[in-house]
Amino acid sequence: MATTDFEADLATTGKQVDAALEALLGERVLPTGRLGDAMRHAVLGGGKRLRPYVVLRSAELFAIPEAAAMPTACALELLHCYSLVHDDLPAMDDDDLRRGRPTVHRAYDEATAILAGDALLTLAFEVVSAPAPQADPAISATLVHTLARAAGATGMAAGQILDLEAEGRFDGGEPLSLSESQVSHLQSLKTGALFRFAAEAGAILGKASPEDRVRLVRYGAALGRAFQIADDLLDEEASPEELGKATAKDRARGKATLPAVIGKGAAREKLAEAVSAAREALVPYGDRASRLLAAADFAATRRN
Amino acid sequence: MATTDFEADLATTGKQVDAALEALLGERVLPTGRLGDAMRHAVLGGGKRLRPYVVLRSAELFAIPEAAAMPTACALELLHCYSLVHDDLPAMDDDDLRRGRPTVHRAYDEATAILAGDALLTLAFEVVSAPAPQADPAISATLVHTLARAAGATGMAAGQILDLEAEGRFDGGEPLSLSESQVSHLQSLKTGALFRFAAEAGAILGKASPEDRVRLVRYGAALGRAFQIADDLLDEEASPEELGKATAKDRARGKATLPAVIGKGAAREKLAEAVSAAREALVPYGDRASRLLAAADFAATRRN
Repeated sequence: MATTDFEADLATTGKQVDAALEALLGERVLPTGRLGDAMRHAVLGGGKRLRPYVVLRSAELFAIPEAAAMPTACALELLHCYSLVHDDLPAMDDDDLRRGRPTVHRAYDEATAILAGDALLTLAFEVVSAPAPQADPAISATLVHTLARAAGATGMAAGQILDLEAEGRFDGGEPLSLSESQVSHLQSLKTGALFRFAAEAGAILGKASPEDRVRLVRYGAALGRAFQIADDLLDEEASPEELGKATAKDRARGKATLPAVIGKGAAREKLAEAVSAAREALVPYGDRASRLLAAADFAATRRN
Repeated sequence: MATTDFEADLATTGKQVDAALEALLGERVLPTGRLGDAMRHAVLGGGKRLRPYVVLRSAELFAIPEAAAMPTACALELLHCYSLVHDDLPAMDDDDLRRGRPTVHRAYDEATAILAGDALLTLAFEVVSAPAPQADPAISATLVHTLARAAGATGMAAGQILDLEAEGRFDGGEPLSLSESQVSHLQSLKTGALFRFAAEAGAILGKASPEDRVRLVRYGAALGRAFQIADDLLDEEASPEELGKATAKDRARGKATLPAVIGKGAAREKLAEAVSAAREALVPYGDRASRLLAAADFAATRRN
């Protein structure tokens, strides 16, 4: 699948995801007022919806229609948005801009941002466990459990604390000097966990075999690596206008990134290796996996 | 059941809950290091475990053994502890003491407290959805969904934002002057939602009839009202030593409490009414509900 075809597909799917998110966050469902408004600000302000895209396409691989996979896709995006809201807080990365708009604590205030993040994380679990006709509760329970493990103290949250530790935040000292494998481990938690879930979710929804599930997790892990390395290269190379957020901040903060540890050239090689690994994991599915493959190419080559 | 018997039962059950929480938060399960340590600090530092007690006793009413209800009981306590960690943050209530010990952001720092709260909330959903032999996944999915609704933007989190709004926090102005019914609504979200879940959980676990479920929710709501009014009276009357946290702060902050709005005497009457309502909801269960009734008496008369 050509990159331009992929981008059109991603844009179309993104609009469907946006519509589903708008329904979940609509004023008939969520209270009007400060909390609901802040949650809508956090979620509905753009975003490529790449993680939901991967959920829907991995579900497609196992013959699950888009409508049946959409709640899981939305839950993952809600959870991703919560992590951005909390990451941006003054006590964390202290960012003013996100997707070209003020971060939640800048548009509202810190207390509202903390609660809006909490409520989005909670809503993710509400959505993924929502009763639906023909839905299998065993699948719901497995999705909840897998998503919680991806997000919590042995997944994304663990990666976030390691990230802050690597900055030297807690002893008030200098950034730690991490090895390449330590940085890779950190990123596999901080970014990789949700991408692994995105890919695995389709296999769970499709009641796929354990072998399929392992393959999809492998693909998701490689996709996450590619996404993060590309992100770190962009942070050093792109302009704030291209990214809609401040750039070159990560290195200034002492964030642990592969380009910082092994250099940009070597990081580009790792990026290519990650795309190959994604491709390899999907070989058994042939052309049926072309959209997932295109997602990996896109993650690696995007300019914003 | 006499109050002293109840207190002994609560203490015994509390120790069992503590042991189960320690297993869930043990160093073999959670990473050692800053995040796991902060989560353990938040959860394992005492606490009466009243919400888990209600889960276990409401489950007992529907013939569900303690071991089968314990994961749900622990999940609720983890979720309650997350809410305390975030409520105590400088951007929220800015408290230094909790259960007689430094709050998480004082013992560690703000970033760690935000992430530890996030990870405890996430762990609650991991625990309540954990696969178990003989567990019915339909029950797991219902528990997840009901817990998420109790905690999120239409439950506890909604109550927390209303609470901050009532303080006049967001326009930087004076505390709002709320009516009695507005205060009651706020408290039914902020405190009541988790107590309602605690009581309803037993009915869900026991696949009880819709009528049973409604009765237990009614009991939980009344218990939550009693608990909150007693808490607000204690905040005005007890010493910091008795409570293990600062007192008389709520009124100084302009927190919306019933004693502040209708006076202590009228609040004590509302407290008695809440205990009666709890009793009334449980009439159909006769003596089998004696421990749940004693819990309501205890919530109303406790001194810490």
